[in-house]
Amino acid sequence: MPNETLQKLKHETRRGVIVLAVLGVLREEHYGYSLGKTLKIMNINIDEGTLYPLVRRLEKQGLLVSEWREEDKRKKRFYTLSNEGLEVFTQLREEWLALNENVINAIGEDK
Amino acid sequence: MPNETLQKLKHETRRGVIVLAVLGVLREEHYGYSLGKTLKIMNINIDEGTLYPLVRRLEKQGLLVSEWREEDKRKKRFYTLSNEGLEVFTQLREEWLALNENVINAIGEDK
Repeated sequence: MPNETLQKLKHETRRGVIVLAVLGVLREEHYGYSLGKTLKIMNINIDEGTLYPLVRRLEKQGLLVSEWREEDKRKKRFYTLSNEGLEVFTQLREEWLALNENVINAIGEDK
Repeated sequence: MPNETLQKLKHETRRGVIVLAVLGVLREEHYGYSLGKTLKIMNINIDEGTLYPLVRRLEKQGLLVSEWREEDKRKKRFYTLSNEGLEVFTQLREEWLALNENVINAIGEDK
């Protein structure tokens, strides 16, 4: 039971920042697999079953644009931030970095 | 429309860390108003309509304990972390600080 609560809260705290990380990485163009790999290299692990629906959602919200292109003889769908996405990302990052500092302050020292 | 998306994403990124901040502050005992005030001093603004239901939810999850006590001639309900809550908070904090560093890395430099 505490473990279930912990998992739920972990999920909740991860979810928000994952979006931010995905937008951050998509300032450069990626297709699904390379996006996942880049995040993994940054030690941000998201399984494909979470990542791909998230990317589709962000595109639907107008934050990403995509196009199909052939690379290494295979058609791949490449994603990157739209102008709107870059704008949203920039504001989100700013707000988040400020909030983050305050949260670290709140959870920082052992009491 | 982009503004609506931005608000939604802001809300999503805030939600998770707000829980963490509330648990962090409740390592020391607070009643509702003093909890909100402490968070406000830390520049973490949560309106009461969000904060109080959250506190009740965390108690229901077994992470907080509470007791009614009189202070300044008024009965107040004081909250603090349960043993389980402290355990969950400690693990959550550890995981989050690690993830956080990676996310800052992902959103950090302008590209």
